[in-house]
Formats: sequence, C-alpha cells, structure tokens
Amino acid sequence: MSLLVVGSMAFDAIETPFGKSDKIIGGAATYIAWSASNFTRPIKQLSVVGGDFPREELKILEARGVAMEGVQVKENEKSFFWSGRYHMDMNTRDTLETQLNVLGNFRPVVPDSYQDCEILMLGNLAPSIQLSVISQLKNKPKLIVMDTMNFWMETAMSDLEKLIKKVDVLMVNDSEARQLSGQYSLVSAAKAIMEMGPQYLIIKKGEHGALLFNDDKVFFAPALPLEVVFDPTGAGDTFAGGFVGHLARTKDHSFENMKSAIIVGSAMASYCVEKFGTARLKELKRTDIDNRIQQFKDLTKFDINLDTDWV
Amino acid sequence: MSLLVVGSMAFDAIETPFGKSDKIIGGAATYIAWSASNFTRPIKQLSVVGGDFPREELKILEARGVAMEGVQVKENEKSFFWSGRYHMDMNTRDTLETQLNVLGNFRPVVPDSYQDCEILMLGNLAPSIQLSVISQLKNKPKLIVMDTMNFWMETAMSDLEKLIKKVDVLMVNDSEARQLSGQYSLVSAAKAIMEMGPQYLIIKKGEHGALLFNDDKVFFAPALPLEVVFDPTGAGDTFAGGFVGHLARTKDHSFENMKSAIIVGSAMASYCVEKFGTARLKELKRTDIDNRIQQFKDLTKFDINLDTDWV
Repeated sequence: MSLLVVGSMAFDAIETPFGKSDKIIGGAATYIAWSASNFTRPIKQLSVVGGDFPREELKILEARGVAMEGVQVKENEKSFFWSGRYHMDMNTRDTLETQLNVLGNFRPVVPDSYQDCEILMLGNLAPSIQLSVISQLKNKPKLIVMDTMNFWMETAMSDLEKLIKKVDVLMVNDSEARQLSGQYSLVSAAKAIMEMGPQYLIIKKGEHGALLFNDDKVFFAPALPLEVVFDPTGAGDTFAGGFVGHLARTKDHSFENMKSAIIVGSAMASYCVEKFGTARLKELKRTDIDNRIQQFKDLTKFDINLDTDWV
Repeated sequence: MSLLVVGSMAFDAIETPFGKSDKIIGGAATYIAWSASNFTRPIKQLSVVGGDFPREELKILEARGVAMEGVQVKENEKSFFWSGRYHMDMNTRDTLETQLNVLGNFRPVVPDSYQDCEILMLGNLAPSIQLSVISQLKNKPKLIVMDTMNFWMETAMSDLEKLIKKVDVLMVNDSEARQLSGQYSLVSAAKAIMEMGPQYLIIKKGEHGALLFNDDKVFFAPALPLEVVFDPTGAGDTFAGGFVGHLARTKDHSFENMKSAIIVGSAMASYCVEKFGTARLKELKRTDIDNRIQQFKDLTKFDINLDTDWV
C-alpha cells in the first residue's frame, strides 16, 4: 500500500521583495514528494519532465523512497516553466511567464506497480489529466485528495465539476472557495462545495491558517506567525504533502486525524517558505519537524475552567 | 478591587450588506461593560453622555453591577454619534458621519470610589483623555489595558507615544500594528511595538482571529468561522470586555491566563456580530457563553504523537 502523487515537476523563476531566484526546481509533485517522504514510503510519483530536468533531482527523491517509474522523461522536450513575482503581502503574485512545454500534451500512464495505491494525491494540474489518472486505477483508492486552482475554474469548469464528485478531500484557498461556490462567507462556501461532492474540504488562508470542514464540523489550524516569509512558492503543495504523508503513515482517515494531518502540513509549509524553492525542505531533519509541530501545539493551547461561578 | 472601564457611550447608525439600523446604542465603554459584566463585578464606568442618552440604558447596566458615578450626563448637550457603512468583506467600512458632541470637550473625572481599581481598561478615545485618567489614579493599577486606532496615530501620535509607555497590554488590529511600527511582518511589528512600552501586545485580525505577543512568546486565537457576520460594530470592544473580564475574575495576569482571556474575548465577540449593536449581548446567558467557549476549544484541539518512528 502506498501514496500515489500526481502533479508537475518543473522549473520556476521567482521574484520576491527579498530577492530573485535563478531557474530553480519546482512543481507541485516535487514539493509534495519532498514533504510527504518525511512521513511515509514508498511514494509513487506520476509526472512528466523534459530532457532538461536534472536526473540528479529524480535520484535524490528516489533515495527518499519516491518511485519514478511513472515519471515520463521526454528527452527532446523542455520541462514546464513558470516565473512569477510576489507582492509585498506575499499572498498575491503576478505570473510573468508560463511555458507549458511537456505539460501541454501530457498523457499520464499509471504503471502496474502503482495500482496498489491507498491514497491518491492529485496535485494541481488540468482536471482532464487528474480524471485520467482516476480512471486508470483498477481499485478505488481509500482516499482521494485533490488540489486545484482558480485557473481551472475559469477554463475547465465542466471537467472540474466531474472530478470534484470523485474526490474525498478538496483543497483550495479562500478566494478559490468563494469563486467555486459563489458564496462570500467561507462557512456557506464550504457547505456549497461539499454538496458538489467532497466529504472533506480544506480552505487554505495563507498566513491566516487553514480550515477543515466535514458535515457540520470545523477545525481551525493556525499558521505560525513568521518574521520573514522569504518565498511562498510551493507552500500549498508542501502543506498537501505533509497532510497526505501523515494520513498515509497513520492509516487513519478520520476527521480527528485529519486535524493532526493539517497541523503537520502547516508545519512543513512554515519551513518551505524560509528559503527559495525546495532548499529548506531538503535540509530538514526529524527533530526540526518535531520542534515545529511542538511550536504549533504551544501556539493554540489554552485552558479555561468552565466549572466555577463567575459573578 | 475592581475593573475601571473608560470609553465612549454613544449612538451609532449602521449600514451593512444585510440591513440598516436606526440610531442605536453604541460606544466602546458600552460594549466593554456589557461583555465584562458577565465575568466580574463591580465595574466602574467612566464616560460622558448627553441629555439624549436613555437613562434606561444606564439603569440596566447598573443592575449588572456597573457603577455609573463616573459617567457625566450633560443634560443640554448631545451624545457622541457615529454612522458608517460596512463593505461586503465586513473588515472595511466607510464613516458616513461623526458628531463629537459631548466628546468634543470631555474632561474625565475619576471619582474617589473608583480609586481601588485593579485593572484599568482604556477603550478607544483620544490619547489625551486616556492619559488624564491614568494621571488621576493615586495608585497604579495592577494592569493597564488599552485599545486605540489608526485615527490617533495620524492626529495625536505624540500623546499616543507617551501613553503607550504606560500601558501593560496594547490592543490594535493588524493594519494599525503595521502603521504604528512601520513593519509589514506582524512578528516584526510586534517586536517594534513592545519596544515602545507594552509588555503584551494583542493584534486583532477580525475573521482571522487574534495574536498575543509577550517577549518571544506568541499565542494564536482563532475566530469562530461564522456563516453570517451581521454587524461587526463593537466586536473589538466586546473582545476587550471579555478579555479584561476574565482577567479580573481570575486575578491572574500571566501570559498563560491571557491566552484564556483572549479566547473568552473571542467567544464574546463572536456573539456580538450576530445582531445589530448590543442586541445579542443583552440576551446572553451563562450557558450560551460556556457553549461558545467549548466550541473554541473544539475548534483548535488536535493530538499528534511525536514518539513513534515515521519512516
């Protein structure tokens, strides 16, 4: 049993108020694998790269238990490339350039060795590609988790609606939740989105934390207040990787355990933003992650005695 | 020993996307007293109203243990009046009209019977008025808590700086913290503001909760995700009332207990926004407050076992 991760492996070039990166390694599936491989192995990676993608980057992930059989290497093509510039608030960004390259005609093929997947993590990609992966799986995974974005709501809403019916956990940010539901209140938005299919909804609010909804229940995960957010790229994917990594490790997909999974994801994301790209994730040790999770515990813990008379 | 509350008692007229109020009872000290009187009595109220302010409103607060000796009634003048219109996000608002009236030449006089105050809660008012109250107290209160706003940063910064040196706990919202400190990161802003005087800083983030800072420590209190925020007017004052009410009741001014106090304040504020003005606060029973605090406990509770091997 394993975790199947679908998503881009790519190049990014990033500008923030604090600096500018060269063309560096990025992509949703890259961040998810780096994050999740702290918690669970094996991970089955499904993606596509061009001949320009460094083999070394695949090898260091393989050494962390990430299988690469499902990663197509198109020798004569170029990898997906995105460049963007973040504003001062680090929540908004402008896309400077997008080169689809190998993603433009990506046809995912699920290897036989991936058919045992217990959790399917669909990183942000065209809904038609995400649908194709689901349809190739002979057994329905125990849990399908999906990340998407506003771009697909604007360009592929019909596919997206079909897909959303098939997933158990949907992850979007707050503005995407409002766009998808047409509701301003996030509580109302969550109700409307859960009626579209997913039993669980995670609304990511960046520096304001994340909300988990299920039926009438809600959980609020804080974000760690950080002095410097150096580069937010990949934070959402790193969050997703920690989330599914924790669920795969503990084999418990209950609402209660999803609360913990969100904290783990938030802890991983809080490290991701400390350096450009995957740099910080590549340095992390188990003790770093333990310490950060402990900080999250301390951050929201309080005690109020309701058993006394007040006035 | 008691809680001394300083602030406006006034009229508001409010427009929100959900409706429009008549001229209704408002004012920082009104909300603080309604909120705090659930937790501690007596409360000593210091304010000023005109002849138009309904005596009945003072009487129902008196019946809740709120002393009115320090509330000046200027029979031939009018009470402070504010009217405003909220935008769809309920975090931003336009002021439509401000009539200072009795607040224009308010000279606070602290009665002898108020000299025993243990906690001084300075609701939002001109810093010169807040300073005058502090200077009239013969003994320094054990804790001085102060709320202020951007308007005073723009018009009375010199007084505000003097005042901030004298307070133990400062409450501002996120944009005010950025304005006061000149720092974008809230962690950096908090450090800069604590260097200006207060040992504790609370940054209110509306629907995104609140942060409490003290030295290098930080606590994150969530806001309850609400389906409808009907009227945010007074939510910050109600929060302040719950905060000081809890501290006065428990007589424990430690960082640990301030965490609980912020949750109590958040619970009270989450009720305040459900109806226009003070309407919802006037209905609350102890069981309502207990239930809401329990919801806050459930909202952020999680459990992660760090003692096992992961991969």
